[in-house]
Amino acid sequence: MKRTVFFISDGTGITAEALGHSLLTQFEHIKFEHITIPYVNSEEKATAAIQHIQEIAVRDGERPLVFATLINPQIRQLISQSNCLLLDFFNTFIGPIESELHTKSSHRVGRTHAMTDHGSYTTRIDAVNYALANDDGITTKNYDKADLILIGVSRSGKTPTCLYLALQFGLFTANYPLTEDDLLHHLLPASLKQHRAKLFGLTIDPKRLHAIRTERRPNSTYAALQQCQLEIQRAEALFLAERIPSINSTTRSIEEIATTILATTGVKRRLF
Amino acid sequence: MKRTVFFISDGTGITAEALGHSLLTQFEHIKFEHITIPYVNSEEKATAAIQHIQEIAVRDGERPLVFATLINPQIRQLISQSNCLLLDFFNTFIGPIESELHTKSSHRVGRTHAMTDHGSYTTRIDAVNYALANDDGITTKNYDKADLILIGVSRSGKTPTCLYLALQFGLFTANYPLTEDDLLHHLLPASLKQHRAKLFGLTIDPKRLHAIRTERRPNSTYAALQQCQLEIQRAEALFLAERIPSINSTTRSIEEIATTILATTGVKRRLF
Repeated sequence: MKRTVFFISDGTGITAEALGHSLLTQFEHIKFEHITIPYVNSEEKATAAIQHIQEIAVRDGERPLVFATLINPQIRQLISQSNCLLLDFFNTFIGPIESELHTKSSHRVGRTHAMTDHGSYTTRIDAVNYALANDDGITTKNYDKADLILIGVSRSGKTPTCLYLALQFGLFTANYPLTEDDLLHHLLPASLKQHRAKLFGLTIDPKRLHAIRTERRPNSTYAALQQCQLEIQRAEALFLAERIPSINSTTRSIEEIATTILATTGVKRRLF
Repeated sequence: MKRTVFFISDGTGITAEALGHSLLTQFEHIKFEHITIPYVNSEEKATAAIQHIQEIAVRDGERPLVFATLINPQIRQLISQSNCLLLDFFNTFIGPIESELHTKSSHRVGRTHAMTDHGSYTTRIDAVNYALANDDGITTKNYDKADLILIGVSRSGKTPTCLYLALQFGLFTANYPLTEDDLLHHLLPASLKQHRAKLFGLTIDPKRLHAIRTERRPNSTYAALQQCQLEIQRAEALFLAERIPSINSTTRSIEEIATTILATTGVKRRLF
């Protein structure tokens, strides 16, 4: 069984895709074809979208599902007349919120993922540049500016997590790979010790680490299962001894790691 | 006027934050305090969340707004009894979708931003590694594997866009900075020419570029307004001559740039 799903928005469509996809994961046995139409911000584009919906309805012999975040009431009205099940993420909730707040919404389009101010744009770019400049222990000199410093053995997931925290949350996150030396001596290097409150540990299942490292450097000591086990064991002992909060990245997505770090540390995201 | 808003989820809370924040941007004159409570996946955690809501309701003298994505009906039932306006992003739509698809949803928690399969996790990490390894023209050898190659002058927004495309969409995106040489000769380098169909140009307002470059290297030739104007003029001429689609990043967020690139090229995201 296959159904077609449209994500239609007068903005990027990212929110419609996120919630729509989240709902569709609850119907595992159905195959969905996705079509995203962003920036539907004129009658002309709405008419083109409707035509696309009608064509798919004829092709499938079933009306498509349409997940929409449409702020403009005229555009929404047009789309609602097409042959589809319209699930309107915006309009469904804006009414109850207006009642609760005793005020009307501004109905201004494109405020969600748009660049509403230069400040938040700059924060984000600065955060990405910070993550890149302070990746993998390249330097330990800028830790004063860090919101968080991720530590863990090589290939435990530090870099993607830092980049995610920068791009999605505007956080300044450095990362430092625990070296053989750090691990052997069961000691935090001095550069980290003075920023203890910012440290967060990443750990990983040794077998998974072995697989990841093998892909990178097959048959190396670096990738050997025994080496992976030893490093992980020592890193986890260090986290425990120094009371550094940590998370196992093995079965977690980057979003789960990032949100768990925020929930654990109380660090607040700078961007939405 | 200030109101408190909770984002409550049995998963990461990212979807609740995204749609909730999108709705709140329509009420610009009200100040909202945000509290996110992720992983509310037990009665105990639900009870703690309810207590938090009740405390805020007393403190504010107004009931909080609660944006929720709760899959478990028991947990949702509990939260709904607290003193709040519950805006339930999941339950509101799951019924109509079940009816449309003539099937029940699985009500399995944590499928949205969770690591549902190793395949998509690997895709994403590989995409991030690809973006990092092929950033800023470090090498032009791996363009066969690229989904997209962004080109533009230095500081036009290429790197953050590539990282976003990798992390959010799982796309393999390289970027190449157009050099003085490329620009002077109005020619695409051979390494790019053979991958024309993958090229996408970024351009930017010369004054904005001047400001960005000045922050990086004050009073340099590199940052001079005249230099920025010249480079942009030549880059845009090159895009036009070679018929490379392009976008101006000046007033656009990274999400807007990324989704516009997808909408223009027809490249499909690999991840949701």
